[in-house]
Amino acid sequence: MAWSNEEKDKDIVISSRIRLARNVKNMPFSLLIPDFKAKMIVDMVERCLMKVNQLEKKFTMIQIDSIDKVNRKMLVEKHLTSPELGSNKYAAVFISADDEISIMVNEEDHIRIQCIKEGFQLHSTYELANMVDDVLEECIDFSFHEKFGYLTACPTNVGTGMRASVMLHLPSLTLSDQINTMVVTLGKFGLTIRGLYGEGTQALGDLYQISNQNTLGVTELETINTLHDVSKEIIKKERELRYEILNNNRVYLEDKIYRAYGVLSSARKIDTEESMKLLSLVRLGSDLDIINLDIKVVNGLMTNIQPGILADLYGEDLNTNNSDTLRAEYIRECLKTN
Amino acid sequence: MAWSNEEKDKDIVISSRIRLARNVKNMPFSLLIPDFKAKMIVDMVERCLMKVNQLEKKFTMIQIDSIDKVNRKMLVEKHLTSPELGSNKYAAVFISADDEISIMVNEEDHIRIQCIKEGFQLHSTYELANMVDDVLEECIDFSFHEKFGYLTACPTNVGTGMRASVMLHLPSLTLSDQINTMVVTLGKFGLTIRGLYGEGTQALGDLYQISNQNTLGVTELETINTLHDVSKEIIKKERELRYEILNNNRVYLEDKIYRAYGVLSSARKIDTEESMKLLSLVRLGSDLDIINLDIKVVNGLMTNIQPGILADLYGEDLNTNNSDTLRAEYIRECLKTN
Repeated sequence: MAWSNEEKDKDIVISSRIRLARNVKNMPFSLLIPDFKAKMIVDMVERCLMKVNQLEKKFTMIQIDSIDKVNRKMLVEKHLTSPELGSNKYAAVFISADDEISIMVNEEDHIRIQCIKEGFQLHSTYELANMVDDVLEECIDFSFHEKFGYLTACPTNVGTGMRASVMLHLPSLTLSDQINTMVVTLGKFGLTIRGLYGEGTQALGDLYQISNQNTLGVTELETINTLHDVSKEIIKKERELRYEILNNNRVYLEDKIYRAYGVLSSARKIDTEESMKLLSLVRLGSDLDIINLDIKVVNGLMTNIQPGILADLYGEDLNTNNSDTLRAEYIRECLKTN
Repeated sequence: MAWSNEEKDKDIVISSRIRLARNVKNMPFSLLIPDFKAKMIVDMVERCLMKVNQLEKKFTMIQIDSIDKVNRKMLVEKHLTSPELGSNKYAAVFISADDEISIMVNEEDHIRIQCIKEGFQLHSTYELANMVDDVLEECIDFSFHEKFGYLTACPTNVGTGMRASVMLHLPSLTLSDQINTMVVTLGKFGLTIRGLYGEGTQALGDLYQISNQNTLGVTELETINTLHDVSKEIIKKERELRYEILNNNRVYLEDKIYRAYGVLSSARKIDTEESMKLLSLVRLGSDLDIINLDIKVVNGLMTNIQPGILADLYGEDLNTNNSDTLRAEYIRECLKTN
């Protein structure tokens, strides 16, 4: 395959993600769907996953209605569901045991297939999403128009119904104020950039999501190739800049990174925002071999210190004060055992 | 003796100091003294210290003219000389091997006897200064007026010629904004409060020097007793406040203290001001048993990270950039071996 030698670029790329929006033929869109039909869709997907063993993965079904606030938040923070999932009584999600596949049912669209893999693996993530799509298509007729492609609740998704994205860690480009320039360039390629938890959110921890804007008049592969090539350029630029800053301002950078590590491994109270800011520096330090710390530990921390996941880990509610104390404790423990 | 059970209160009191200003009879004051007479005074003191063995201490004489900028700064930072010593060609200082006694010659006054002891030991420090005074008086006739007492270059020192002071660490009183109120109260007792390096300097590291303002119309012992009693009250108040903050805001305080420790043991660049601020918190943490760290190590750091002492330790000049890097290295090493 053309992309078989795709590197994972884990120093900069956190994850690659594909989302496919699908709707069941001859069913009203989610906004107007009657309860019994919404339930039918959940049953369809469930039966389909049980019957077709092609994926060789075990799925767990979670009915959003049946879980508490902490668990809902946790699923969103793990990128397994969207914040929007849950307004429908029969909203549900099917999650594979390895967390690579999640299938949301009765979100904005009837079905949203989402696949996520660590590092830079756009093409293989797409392959996986494609397989899930094939499996579901064996049992379910999707709304598809000869000329327009897949029909979706929101016109911005009509066509491929695909949103491909990569999550990048860009501390050097952030530090040297180059993100705003990038926004313009990316627009020319039909790509968009945003913070950690989708549109309108701040780039906590210098984590940015780059994704395609267009779904109409392009093929899935064209979209993925563009995103892939442009991301490669950004990765290259970020990597160059990291070494440029290191070579020109080594003590400045070392100081910033070690102080961040010092605070993280000592604080008794810390909020999400400050943690992410400091973890970003420590992640950079790990990549540049300034600090002896497994980058996987930092990646894990960047996910697990989110309020919902943390509350779930400690079996607590989402009281902020307590949350800051638990977060500090959790970070200290993870850094100690590293 | 009445003050034999005087406690050292080392949790709050860094040091006790006595300074006696003396001038040689029938000699012009320092500002107008001809070189040969200034030299005569140095010789007088030297001979006197050699001859009279009553002190049982070994002295080193340093001619300020003969040492470089780093060493001059270092002596000031160690409180062994004043910043003013050095304008006269024959300015010199005699320092005892244990650094408890320093005798400045040809400063503002011909002779300034200074004694310093760790902790709260005002009375025994005064006894020591008194002994040095007696030793010198055996060989030197001091300017003394029956009615006014010791005559000094500046009228504010006439009388006892004594400045008694204690150096206090007052983080809790600072944190709760009570220093300004104290200034007024102290004034009523003829006492004054100022930062680490005398008048007009900021209270770096929450270290404050409290001393007497009056030298006329009071005896040495009255002055010391007042300073002693008022200091006792301040010490009591600071100690109460430490536990009050600890009991009411334990996590807040622990967080502040551990973060300070984290930064100090990790930074690769740190200036004097920030170091002192953080060391003050760590010193408080050591006293309150929040952090397992010998208070002597922190006291040592608070002195040794001053630019001159640090440069002297590393045999470097006073280049600031380099100084911040060395300071960070020195602090890390001291905290590591603690």
